[in-house]
Amino acid sequence: MKNILIASTSTLANENYLQYLLPELEIHFQNCSTILFIPYARPGGISHEEYTAIVALAFAKMNKVVKGIHEFDDAALAIKNAEAIFTGGGNTFVLVSQLHKKNVMGILSEVIKSGTPYLGTSAGSNICGLTMQTTNDMPIVYPPSFQTLGAVPFNLNPHYLDPDLTSKHMGETRETRIMEYHAFNSVPVLGLREGSWLDVKGDKITLKGDLTARLFRKDQTPEEIATGTDLSFLK
Amino acid sequence: MKNILIASTSTLANENYLQYLLPELEIHFQNCSTILFIPYARPGGISHEEYTAIVALAFAKMNKVVKGIHEFDDAALAIKNAEAIFTGGGNTFVLVSQLHKKNVMGILSEVIKSGTPYLGTSAGSNICGLTMQTTNDMPIVYPPSFQTLGAVPFNLNPHYLDPDLTSKHMGETRETRIMEYHAFNSVPVLGLREGSWLDVKGDKITLKGDLTARLFRKDQTPEEIATGTDLSFLK
Repeated sequence: MKNILIASTSTLANENYLQYLLPELEIHFQNCSTILFIPYARPGGISHEEYTAIVALAFAKMNKVVKGIHEFDDAALAIKNAEAIFTGGGNTFVLVSQLHKKNVMGILSEVIKSGTPYLGTSAGSNICGLTMQTTNDMPIVYPPSFQTLGAVPFNLNPHYLDPDLTSKHMGETRETRIMEYHAFNSVPVLGLREGSWLDVKGDKITLKGDLTARLFRKDQTPEEIATGTDLSFLK
Repeated sequence: MKNILIASTSTLANENYLQYLLPELEIHFQNCSTILFIPYARPGGISHEEYTAIVALAFAKMNKVVKGIHEFDDAALAIKNAEAIFTGGGNTFVLVSQLHKKNVMGILSEVIKSGTPYLGTSAGSNICGLTMQTTNDMPIVYPPSFQTLGAVPFNLNPHYLDPDLTSKHMGETRETRIMEYHAFNSVPVLGLREGSWLDVKGDKITLKGDLTARLFRKDQTPEEIATGTDLSFLK
């Protein structure tokens, strides 16, 4: 049975890394003593070692041991044997490139669908959708494919940002970008605001956190989804 | 001799399409009676016909006839025979995909380098760089490659936006994204603010408009470039 947390962000303004999620993570990872960390998204280009050290520190408070996937000779086997998995944020193009190049997108999708507890934040959440095509990130590397895990049957837009109605900037708003996506694609897109997350238990996909999320469907007016809603109706 | 205008945006807030550039365009296109328009970036997913109609209306004021590239049977031949070329904004992934799929990226680069007057705005400017990897756009389609025209020996970030220091949003700032690009790439990146453009005459690349531009080079502190600066030193 799927057991997944898909969080918009790792960190809220003026808070520590993962702080707002800690109560949830205590429950989510209650049956695991070790967590496999996937640092491939490399925020700011930091190394796998540096990134894993930050995450290990955060999970030490919960008495969990964190190992980076780069510490294993066989990445696929590390995923297969993991008690629990966390993929952190950074650049989605870098993350997806690495997952494809290491040939582990398939096995990661498999273990998540068979019930290995998974946490994603930001880029690590983006990859839970069918494709990475609604990421906000810059295409700083060229991935072999935009296909991702398909752990949920729609796409995610983490760090969803409402239009600034006072701005004179003429670059596209997030809403405009997602509606442009729907001029070329039909997969629904969920805009997850910072502080929101999805809790996936089996086929149930519940919106959590204090805020509403914004749901975009092709040829439909975007709608606000209340926290607590079960999104399993989305296809 | 190259004769190129690379504009951050087509439109300033509360202005008409191309309005702020009109005096410049009068000079830029003074020897042409027709302009070939490349509508492939399809802003908001509008059709090639719709997009070309908007552009034709703007250039009618200057007594220029605009023809869309989609009106020609042979896109490569249309580019080769064009008196002048304009590529409009929209989604850079859609634009670059189409240029590669129609197999015209090479010929477009050639004619621009041999002196066919060219105007790019937004996505149409992005493609003037070596790659499209510093676009702000969402990857709504998967292009066969990120390579672009290389009309200038660096990359562009149109609609460059300064960080909002009052924001509590934790998504990356534009500066953070470009610096992340430099963790993986060494090509310089010029952030062009709205209302700025580059005027390329032969090997001379002059920053125009009222504002400074922000130059990012790998392992260097970003710097502000004054309007009027010749950027031909960039490699």
